[in-house]
Formats: sequence, C-alpha cells, structure tokens
Amino acid sequence: MKAYAYANHSPEDALVPFSFERREARAQDVVIEILFCGICHSDIHSARNEWGGTKYPFVPGHEIVGRVSAVGSSVTRFKAGDLVGVGCLVDSCRSCPSCDSGLEQYCDNGFTGTYGGQDKIGGTPHKYTMGGYSNTITVDERFVLSIPENLDLAATAPLLCAGITTYSPLKHWKVGPGHKVGVIGLGGLGHMGVKFANAMGAHVVMITTSPEKAQDAQRLGAHDVLISKDSDAMKAAGTSFDFLLNTIPVGHDTDPYMNLLKRDGTMVIVGAVESLKHVSGIPFIFKRRNMAGSLIGGLPETQEMLDFCGKHNIVCDIERINIQDVNTAYDRTVAGDVKYRFVIDMASLKG
Amino acid sequence: MKAYAYANHSPEDALVPFSFERREARAQDVVIEILFCGICHSDIHSARNEWGGTKYPFVPGHEIVGRVSAVGSSVTRFKAGDLVGVGCLVDSCRSCPSCDSGLEQYCDNGFTGTYGGQDKIGGTPHKYTMGGYSNTITVDERFVLSIPENLDLAATAPLLCAGITTYSPLKHWKVGPGHKVGVIGLGGLGHMGVKFANAMGAHVVMITTSPEKAQDAQRLGAHDVLISKDSDAMKAAGTSFDFLLNTIPVGHDTDPYMNLLKRDGTMVIVGAVESLKHVSGIPFIFKRRNMAGSLIGGLPETQEMLDFCGKHNIVCDIERINIQDVNTAYDRTVAGDVKYRFVIDMASLKG
Repeated sequence: MKAYAYANHSPEDALVPFSFERREARAQDVVIEILFCGICHSDIHSARNEWGGTKYPFVPGHEIVGRVSAVGSSVTRFKAGDLVGVGCLVDSCRSCPSCDSGLEQYCDNGFTGTYGGQDKIGGTPHKYTMGGYSNTITVDERFVLSIPENLDLAATAPLLCAGITTYSPLKHWKVGPGHKVGVIGLGGLGHMGVKFANAMGAHVVMITTSPEKAQDAQRLGAHDVLISKDSDAMKAAGTSFDFLLNTIPVGHDTDPYMNLLKRDGTMVIVGAVESLKHVSGIPFIFKRRNMAGSLIGGLPETQEMLDFCGKHNIVCDIERINIQDVNTAYDRTVAGDVKYRFVIDMASLKG
Repeated sequence: MKAYAYANHSPEDALVPFSFERREARAQDVVIEILFCGICHSDIHSARNEWGGTKYPFVPGHEIVGRVSAVGSSVTRFKAGDLVGVGCLVDSCRSCPSCDSGLEQYCDNGFTGTYGGQDKIGGTPHKYTMGGYSNTITVDERFVLSIPENLDLAATAPLLCAGITTYSPLKHWKVGPGHKVGVIGLGGLGHMGVKFANAMGAHVVMITTSPEKAQDAQRLGAHDVLISKDSDAMKAAGTSFDFLLNTIPVGHDTDPYMNLLKRDGTMVIVGAVESLKHVSGIPFIFKRRNMAGSLIGGLPETQEMLDFCGKHNIVCDIERINIQDVNTAYDRTVAGDVKYRFVIDMASLKG
C-alpha cells in the first residue's frame, strides 16, 4: 500500500517529499488516514542522528491523530470513520511482565518505536518503522487509541507524546489536591505538566529561568511562579514541594531543585535523556528525597489520559503548519521559538 | 557533673585525655555510665573538620552503649541498672511533622547531634554537645534506647549508627522475601546491610570491587557476590535487582548500579555525603527507576531495629580497642583496615 510522506535521507538533509510502502492490513490491523502529526524534539534528534542509529530514508512523527479508513477482520475496538491516535509505540513483545501490566513502554524485550524501530511485523521492503509525517499508517489495534470527539483535533496530536509523558508521572506519583507541585521548564512538556497538575487539583508552581514566562504560565494554570535564577526565592521555597516534574531537556545541576522538595518528596526527570551536570548525595540523604525518571506511558494509561483530556477539555497549545514548512519549524523548535508545539496539517501533503 | 573523655583540640591534633562538665540531670533526663562506644567514620571527618564547623575541644562518639546510673523524677521508661543506648541524636524540636512522626532525624528545625551540635538544653559551660568517647552522658529520656539483654554489648554499640543507617532504608522500602537486594560496598555500613537484608528474607547480593571480599560477604549472609569491575557480570545482572543499598562513602558513577535495577526499582544512597561523580538521566527514564537517600533513623525505628537484632541475634563484627589506641584506630579506619568497626571499651578510660 503506497504511502506519501516527508523524509530526510541523511543527517544533514532537509525533509523532502517521499513515498514508500506500508504493509497490507492484517486481521488485527487498523488503517488510519493521518490528519495531524505533532513535531516532537525527539523527531529532530532522530532525523539529525543526534542519538545515533538513525536509518535513512527517515520518516519522523509519533504524535498522530487520524481517522480509521479500514480495519482487519478481527479488529473489535475500531471501525472505519473513528477518530484515533497513535503515539510513540506501534509494537512490543506483549508477553513480559511490563507488557502484561499495560506498561508497554518498559517492555523487557524492547518496544517498537513508531519511527526508526526494527519492524518485527514486516510486510514492507524496508525493515524499520516509518512515522507519522505521512498520509496513512497501519497499526495493530492494541497500539491504537480512541480520540474524544469534543477536542480540537490538531491540538490533540501532541497529547500522544508530550501529553502522556507528563500525565503518567503525575498519576504514578499520585499528584492531587493538597499537593504543592513544581513544573520545571516551560516548553512542550512543561506547558502540559502545568495543565495536568492543575486539572488534578494540585497547587501548581511553574519553575523557570525566565521571568517573562510568568504570565503565560499563569494563563496555562500555574498558581505561582518561581524564578530558578533567584537564589533568595529558591532558598525561601526550600523543602516546600511535594513533587517536581523536571522537563529540562539538557544536563543540569539537580541540587537546587532537589532542595525544594519536602522530606520524602520526589523529582521526576522526563526531559534530560543524557548526563546530568551535577548531582550531590546530600539533598537525597538529609530529607530522604527521591529522584526518578519516567518514559511516556503504556497504552491503557495513554487512553486514560486522552479520556481525562476529553473530560477536562485539555489540549496542547500549538502552532499549526503545512508540511512544506517542516524544516523551518525544526529550526524554530531547536531555538525554543514555539508556543508550545508545532502540529502539521497533513491535508497539506496533497498540495 | 564532671566527665572524663578523649578530645582533640584542633583538626591536626590527636585525641588526648580531657575532662569537662555534663549538665545535672533534669526531671526527664537519664544519666548513663558509658561502657562502649563505636568509632564511626563521621567521628573522624568531624574531628579533622573535614566537613567544616567543628568546635574544639571536640569529643566524638555517637554509637554509645551503657548502663543507667540515675534517672530524673519524671523518667518512666528507664531505671538505674538498665542497659541503654544513645545514637546520633540527643535532641530535636519535638513539634514539627517529622518529630511528630518519630522521624526526629529529619526534624524540620534541625536535630541536635550527639557531638558538636548546638546544645539547646544548656546547663554546661560549653554551648555544644560532647559525644560518647567519655565515661558518662546525660540524655533526655526520649533519645535513650533499650538494649536487648542477650546481645554482646561491645558489638551492639555500632548498631546505633551503622545499624540503623542500613536497617531504616531496608524497612522503609519494604525489603523482604522474594526480593533480590544488592548491597554495594563492604565496610561498616555494608556488612550490616547484608546481615539485615538476609534476616528480612531477601536474596542478598554483595556488590563489591574486591573479589577477595567474596568469602567474607558470604559468611555475613550474602547469597551471591557481584564484582562491580567485571563489566560482563554487571551486564548479565542488568535489570534484575529490586533494591540496592549503596554504601559507597565517596562520589562515584551511579549509572552502572542504576542499570542493575528492575523497572520501578530503587537505589538508596547512605554513604556518599558529597557530589556523585556521574549521574545520567537515561537509567532513570527508561525503566522508571528511583534513586533516594536515607539518614540514620528516628527513635521509634532505632528501638525497633535493636529489638529486631535481639530477636535475630544480630550484632556488628567489631575489633575492640582501648581508648589509648583511638588515634591508631582512626588511621586504620581511614585506610579501610578494619572488619568492620572499631569499638572502644570505655573501662580503659580509667586506666
């Protein structure tokens, strides 16, 4: 089955129009006409081979929203015309303890990413997965999500990665009323962290280096803003937070943030997939504080997050673009010049 | 009340005989004749002012076992002749949420250390606390512990610091049967971690750089030994541990240890009161792993630990010395030449 897309052919290349073969639908597959696809910073790292191992031609995109165009004979949860989403995963082993617990993102045998993952299902000339900057995708029913009908579709797309990445740790660590929660960093992840923590009933503090972000943070749902460069303010806020969601995407000194936590508090790293610059044992030992990490979410929790968004009318703040502008959008994302996520209108692919 | 002790008078000085005033017993105080006092590495750091802020003359010692010689009029839990212990704390605010929870070691207003702490009770010419390398000490009943009658007294002393430091995290993180637990580092803390984790029913693995420590680790209760310098063995053991007790006393690269943890596993730092050399976000994020710290224990849990030791006949492995040998013992402790704790027989003070 022919698919149209944008791909790049080497780390230095821009993304350009590209066509390739998707597999024919198996009995358990859902064929999706892609309507919107978000641009995640991981797309850029991968396209430019900054994490190594990227195979070319490379089609990015794992924040996919679309409409079912066909279903295989054994599909029970979806029918043609349904609004659906696909996130960062399209397959996993389905038999390890993590998969059995609906935590496919921690699959002991390695999940299959929506792009650039080793394709264990096959049925195509290429041996790796092709992402969502495309007109269509064929996905096993288990890895397809229902999209609530009441949400803006374009603004829903980034929920499939930025949304679940922030929702999952807030839920896992049971954030709720009576908790003082800090969201560190206001970008694609951080702006969703603020919206979710607010909707869950916590007292939300945006922690940012940039005083000029205060107003926007409050519009998004932050009750307070703490400027991390203000050492007096940081000291005054010491030992006062129950939970911190750390979305800083690069290595940094974690001590000033850890010191904000109460005894037994937890800071969860969701952004820094690299070496942290400085970590001291002292903030951990003297208040029994915790630091943890969290990776996207499993399929059941991603569905729960989408349903939560439907109920609370939560979507991402986005800038909608045509696919012809994707390379400019990449440069602007790297420069931090987006509030807060680009989403590609896939109708533009036909243009 | 006159007390005899060993003290040093500057960071460079050896410990020498010294006498000073303890306060007269208040209604709530217990006066203790000290029989044994362990040598903790913290004593040495403090005596040598390696953490800063040491006041001189300085009397170390916070692993104290003795016999009650007198009690104040309102003391209910102790009477003259009882075997008792005193650990790292002799006072705290008693009104913050941590103190209310029996977690005096995390007192929001700062606990009073057994030595070198600001003495808020007073009644002595010096304004800071004097530790247990002494013939007597006067302590508020709340901070005095009962010692089970069946244990070797000298070998019981280090339970008050090395014991509770390792027992508390194992209990807090609910280590027990069915868990694979790694104890990293075989010293004063590590050897107690092995004994406790074994007694709690876990499968215990000693993780050490030194193959020559394997036999001793097994004698102490380790079911298995993992040599951390053997990268193949470390790789083979990846993602297999439920819990790690990290007793390494200096900064180190935590990634190789974090990678040993299963999804949702926790590594607790109890030794490295300083900067860790290298910490990467990756092992945290990809398996939702946790790193935490833990500081000694509160009074109720320290009593629970002592009772547990009485029931399971657990004490420390010690080398008993006279106080005249304390300076040599310090040098040997710094060199790691002790299995696994020096304990001073305080009867030698009269010699």
